Formats: sequence, structure tokens, C-alpha cells
Amino acid sequence: MPVSREIHLVARPNGMPRPEDFALVETSVGDAGDGQVLVQNLYMSVDPAMRPRLTAGQDLNVPMMGGALGRVVQSKNPDFAVGDIVTNRSGFREYFVSAGKDLSKLAADPDLSLTTYMHAMGMTGFTAYGGLLHIGQLKDGEQVFVSTAAGAVGSVAAQIAKIKGCYVVGSTGSADKAAWLKDEVGLDAVINYKEAPIRQALQDATPKGIDVYFDNVGGDHLEAALRRMNTLGRIPVCGFISGYNSGHSPVSNLSNIIYSRVMLRGFVGTDFPHLHGQFLSDMAGWLKDGKVKYQETVLDGIANAPSALIGLMQGANTGKMLVKLAA
Amino acid sequence: MPVSREIHLVARPNGMPRPEDFALVETSVGDAGDGQVLVQNLYMSVDPAMRPRLTAGQDLNVPMMGGALGRVVQSKNPDFAVGDIVTNRSGFREYFVSAGKDLSKLAADPDLSLTTYMHAMGMTGFTAYGGLLHIGQLKDGEQVFVSTAAGAVGSVAAQIAKIKGCYVVGSTGSADKAAWLKDEVGLDAVINYKEAPIRQALQDATPKGIDVYFDNVGGDHLEAALRRMNTLGRIPVCGFISGYNSGHSPVSNLSNIIYSRVMLRGFVGTDFPHLHGQFLSDMAGWLKDGKVKYQETVLDGIANAPSALIGLMQGANTGKMLVKLAA
Repeated sequence: MPVSREIHLVARPNGMPRPEDFALVETSVGDAGDGQVLVQNLYMSVDPAMRPRLTAGQDLNVPMMGGALGRVVQSKNPDFAVGDIVTNRSGFREYFVSAGKDLSKLAADPDLSLTTYMHAMGMTGFTAYGGLLHIGQLKDGEQVFVSTAAGAVGSVAAQIAKIKGCYVVGSTGSADKAAWLKDEVGLDAVINYKEAPIRQALQDATPKGIDVYFDNVGGDHLEAALRRMNTLGRIPVCGFISGYNSGHSPVSNLSNIIYSRVMLRGFVGTDFPHLHGQFLSDMAGWLKDGKVKYQETVLDGIANAPSALIGLMQGANTGKMLVKLAA
Repeated sequence: MPVSREIHLVARPNGMPRPEDFALVETSVGDAGDGQVLVQNLYMSVDPAMRPRLTAGQDLNVPMMGGALGRVVQSKNPDFAVGDIVTNRSGFREYFVSAGKDLSKLAADPDLSLTTYMHAMGMTGFTAYGGLLHIGQLKDGEQVFVSTAAGAVGSVAAQIAKIKGCYVVGSTGSADKAAWLKDEVGLDAVINYKEAPIRQALQDATPKGIDVYFDNVGGDHLEAALRRMNTLGRIPVCGFISGYNSGHSPVSNLSNIIYSRVMLRGFVGTDFPHLHGQFLSDMAGWLKDGKVKYQETVLDGIANAPSALIGLMQGANTGKMLVKLAA
């Protein structure tokens, strides 16, 4: 009957979340009963999409929800054996008991790091893959812009576009990230939006316009892209991080979509399950060939989960933000 | 060699166009030469989409462009006979000479008024048809909202949705138009946005949310609709009249499209030519059966064309705004 530490949301943030909006709570978790398993989480994910749930969706004073990777440490369920690695939505806690329906067994490729299943091989990678190829209907050789291009989703989207022979412009908010995108990832142009106004910089970087804008930001980035969209362009809208903390992020030139007949489409990573098998196969190959590179920021211990989430909002991470809960 | 009067744009309007931005110019038009026809325009169209072209696109001090219906009065082109009715983009003038490539012969249905080919049977009707059924992928029985539902495009879109068994809410800006939509057209709910804030009124009128929003307005109407969109909803964006004169019309809650996975797609009436034959057949039947009703505002004489355009921007028209140039 292990002691588990878990993170509760105890106050709804107004604007940027603060450490005191969260509490670290120690609790006892029962042993696995008949049909149940006891899971120890190894890694948990911290994602921009968690921010709107703090305002509405995440209950107060209960463990927060979030993607995690765990190991089965007790099993009274015939579908799971001790040692199985399982993905789950019960992050922000060290241990939990499950009847198994909320768990997916992971057959991890031994040639890949386990943490890649938390980003490039996981939901953020699949979101980038389906968002670009299915929602965005990317064609080889097109003109592509990706915002937050050094982030977990954006970096995969930008690299898939490069693999497809596209001209790819990425935006990011620090010199380090810009250097990684330019020198390591090999994007065609990189914009540090903290150094140059995004509108002019994007115009300069897209002499042939934009066919697909993979949008993680909304707001000023979307306005800048709307000025540059080519006829029949597509904008898969994956995130609106510009508005998550301020509550709104107005877009003043949406009417541009009419004459260029541009499509915007909001989506989430569960919108294209039929592509998942192909994605796992493609991405494993790209990772092993070094065609998709990644960065990780791993904080240690459940007590750091609130800092990880706040840091993510402030751009403190390099690549995918993870919290390691156990070895 | 007839004398033709024509309308020139002589100054670019800043905000609402004024009469002095236009000039009535008298000119001599030559007779038809070899391969040419001389066309006398009978009716010309005035459309909201003309407004952005006044800011950019329409040259100064030349006859303005716009849809018109004319009659061939001289022909030295074997493809045309005197008396042929032709649609053309050379509105805002009484006569013009053409080599024929910019003319389409109209085989008008004798059971329909010729003017229906300027709206329900013409480009505005086709825009509504393709926008709703092709871009908006309307399914029978869905929840539909149409803005400027008494306008030339909106009224057709709203009535097609009714024909398809949908629950249809329309917005309009006057009590007379609201009464027509409610009593004659038979919409399920009508919002007069000058009497009630659109946001609350739309919420009250859409208890089952919105599956398809046919957007002619943008701005506050689009914001109100984005709050009510159902999962996988579609927003065909046909016009943004809210921003045509002010130059911008910010939308602050576009991030709503992510979790509901809503699609917005700008389009124009030339995006679905493959549907045109089916449209003409469907629409002729609906008009003859009285399932699509229409209203027209017809001003008399080319000198009234600027007033017609300004009046359209101010909501002075009832239904399609036309100018009659000859009998």
C-alpha cells in the first residue's frame, strides 16, 4: 500500500498560473483488487493545452489529469503483467489503481528512448503528423510556416514538412531555440519574434507566400500569417497559446480568408485515429535516421510539476517538458 | 454609335463611400467591328463584395466592374445574334463593345423573371448553394445560423437549409426584414441585431447549438456563433461586411475552434463550377414551387448606381439590390 504524492489544483489562476494555485498532497493508494492493476508513473507530460483546463474543466482539490507513462507494479488483471509499460491520462501522481480501461500497453521500440513516447512517438508527435498531413493536407514542396517551431508539436511539424521537401519557416521566442532550429534542424528561415516584429519578419521570410500555416499561437502570429496565405491555403489550428493566459487574443484580419479561399480548422490529436499505425512506423524510421531531432527538458520529481507547467507558459523549456517521477 | 453613360470611381472612400467618390461620365461607344458585338445592359447588380474593391482592385477614372445582364444589339460575331441575352462583368455602363469572351449567353427559363438571373438563379444564389452544401457540407436536419438572412445570398442560404429540413436561425437589421423572414420565409427563429445584442439573442435562439454558420458578416456575429458551434461544425465564410467600411473587425474567441474542431473556410462563388448545372435545375424548381422566395430593390437608371451601392452598405435595400438600365 504505497504512499503516493499528487498535485491538486486548489485555486483557478487568473492569468499566469502561480505556485500557490497548486498543492502537493500525500495520500495512501490501496493495493490492486480483483481485476485491477497498481501503476507507478515514470514520466508525466506538461502541455500548453493544460492551461485552459485550469480555468474550466479541471476540478479543484483532486489530482490533476495529464498524460503519463507508467509501469505496472501489481496486477490482478489478466490483460496486464507486472513490468508492462502503460500510457495513461493519470499524470500528476506517483501511483494509482486502475481497472485497466484507461491504460494502453506500450510496445516500445528498444532502439528508441522511452521518453520519445512522451513526445515525438506520442500524442504531440501524432498531433503534428495528423495536423500537417491530414488536416493541413500538406503537399510535397509547399511553402510552410510553423509557430512555436522549437516546441514539442511545432518541432515535429516543421521537420515533417522538411522531410516532404517543403520550404519551412519557423518562429520561436529565444536565441537558443532559433539557433537549434537553424543549425540542427535546418529550417529554411527562423524568426525570433522577441527580436523582430512577427508581421514584417514573416513577410521577409516568405517570398512565395504560405500554403500551410501550422498554428500553435493564434493572435499576432495568425494575423501575420493571414497576410501571407496563398490561394487555397490551409491553417490547421492546433493551439492558441497567445490567448491561454490573457483569455483572449483578437485576430483583426480574418476576412483575408475570403479572397484567398483559406481554410482554418481546429483539431485535436484524436481526430485521425486511422493514421496512427502509419504514424508510428514513419516516425520510428525518421527518429532512427536522425531526420526528426528533438530536445527535452526533464524536471525531477512530482514536487516540480507545477513549476514545469508554469515554466512551459513562460517558455522556460527547451523542447518537450517532462517530469520524471521514478526511475 | 450610341452614347453610353457610365460610372467611374474618382476617389477611394475612407470608410463609408460618399456620392462624390463617383462620377457619371458620358462617352461614345463605337459600333461592333469584325468579331465583335455591341451590348446594351438591361440590369446591373450591386454587391457587398464591391466595397473592398473600392479600396484596392478597382482602378480610378475608368468604368467600374460589376455583374450585369445585357442584350446584344449589334453582332459581327457568329457566336451571338441580335437579341441574345448575355451575362457580363461590365456593369456600371449602358453600352459596351465586346469580342465575346467575357460574355455568357443566358438561356433564361421563360417561367422565371429575368431578374432572378441577377440573384437567386445567378451568382448570389449559386454562392449560397455551393457555400452551404459544398463548403459547409450541410446535412439534412442540422442546426443552422445565417447572418444577413434577408440579403441576396443569405436569404437563399437560409431557404435551402429549410428545404433540407434544418432548424434555421437568421439575423437581420430591421423589423421589416425580420417580419419577412419570420412570416413569409418561415425561419425557425429571427434575430434583429439592432434590437437585441447578437450574443445573447443567438444563445437563446440556438438551444441545440450550431452545426453550420453561413457567415456574411464576421465581427460580432462570428464571435457570437463561435460560442455556439457544435463539435465538427463548419463555417463557410462568404463575406465580412462588418469590416468592409471600418477596415477591420476583430474576432476575439477564435480559439474556440480548437476544442470543438470547427472549420472556417473562405470561399467565392467560382469555387465549385461542377455544381452549376445541378444548381440551375434545383433552384428553378424551388423558385417555381415557391420554396425559395425573394425580394428585390430596383433603382432606375445608371445615375442611381452610386446611391444603390451606398444604400446597400447602409441596409437601405430589401433583398437583392439592382439598377435597371434599360427596358
